[in-house]
Amino acid sequence: MGDEVKLYGVDGSPFVCRVKIALNLKQVKYDFYVEDLSNKSADLLKYNPAHKKIPVLVHNENPISESLVIVEYIDEAWKGVPILPHDAYEKAQVRFWAKFNEDKCIPALFKAIGSHGSEEAVAEAHEQLQFLENELNVKGGKFFGGDNVNLVDISASFIAFWLGAAEEALGIKVLAKDKFPKLTEWCGNYINCQPVKESLPAREILVAFFKKRFGGN
Amino acid sequence: MGDEVKLYGVDGSPFVCRVKIALNLKQVKYDFYVEDLSNKSADLLKYNPAHKKIPVLVHNENPISESLVIVEYIDEAWKGVPILPHDAYEKAQVRFWAKFNEDKCIPALFKAIGSHGSEEAVAEAHEQLQFLENELNVKGGKFFGGDNVNLVDISASFIAFWLGAAEEALGIKVLAKDKFPKLTEWCGNYINCQPVKESLPAREILVAFFKKRFGGN
Repeated sequence: MGDEVKLYGVDGSPFVCRVKIALNLKQVKYDFYVEDLSNKSADLLKYNPAHKKIPVLVHNENPISESLVIVEYIDEAWKGVPILPHDAYEKAQVRFWAKFNEDKCIPALFKAIGSHGSEEAVAEAHEQLQFLENELNVKGGKFFGGDNVNLVDISASFIAFWLGAAEEALGIKVLAKDKFPKLTEWCGNYINCQPVKESLPAREILVAFFKKRFGGN
Repeated sequence: MGDEVKLYGVDGSPFVCRVKIALNLKQVKYDFYVEDLSNKSADLLKYNPAHKKIPVLVHNENPISESLVIVEYIDEAWKGVPILPHDAYEKAQVRFWAKFNEDKCIPALFKAIGSHGSEEAVAEAHEQLQFLENELNVKGGKFFGGDNVNLVDISASFIAFWLGAAEEALGIKVLAKDKFPKLTEWCGNYINCQPVKESLPAREILVAFFKKRFGGN
């Protein structure tokens, strides 16, 4: 349809990857513009003046920022497999858990990683992960979205792929299989789902990144 | 239709008020359950185990948490005046600015208030408010939603009403009329819009709250 779709980001970002996965699920072709975060492009500053952050999606010259806002936009702008359910209540639950991952769970995991797995930070991360474990137990599906990946799965990409790379880099364990069997199973299901798999960065790059960033001394 | 709608909250909260405004815009009748935040009810802990926070909306025994998620739910669950636009791109913009208010602007204002109007914190708040001033300038309407209140307006309730009460309580000025003429005008438009006006708490209570919380020494 002559759609021009541009994505501004960096390869290793879990937030950029959310957008890549959503575009891939909808089979939308796009051009990827790699940003140098120490010297942001004039385009990025123009398209996202309020945050000056990646990812930014530009659809026919209309810019959209904030990864979860972008994923909802992609779901509404393109047909194909739905990323959010139609029912208003189910949709609210999906938005709630995506926001939970964004505001509570991922920050707790960053703290656990940043503290090299300190007991207190890991306990706090476990408290948050337990809510997701319970959700999967209640739902009983392959993904948070049941048989298909939904916004909650996409919002949790960091847990499925980045967390394991950080654990390997630092020699710590946060997502313990015996404590979180459902979530561990979900990680495998999610990263092996084809549209997700194709969108993930190389694991070695992430391991190297976490070693450099948090592995010091 | 036999709808049972319950809202758990406290009277002075700007986040609870967002939900009251949305329900009022849709002319939905509801029962308001006042929470004692120092001794939260069993209902609140049951309905929002992940955050244990207000507001919680319970619609026919289905609980929903997070004020902006609740407002979107209300918009989708009840007909009447729309709170979000239909167009996917416009909707993404509305979600972006609501999230901006939530994550950037209101926290910056809390810092400005908490620091009793320190130069640095006020400058940071001004930087955020300037984005909203620009938005109103570009849009040119009475509200962020044009002729009607939308999610961005509702998300900014704190700026329209709570901020002024805090300024009065502490004898500071953050939202200066000469710097932010459009935003100042918007505050008046918004708090005088009937469904909003009916939902706001008494201003004296807020002034007393801010004096007690931040006025000391």
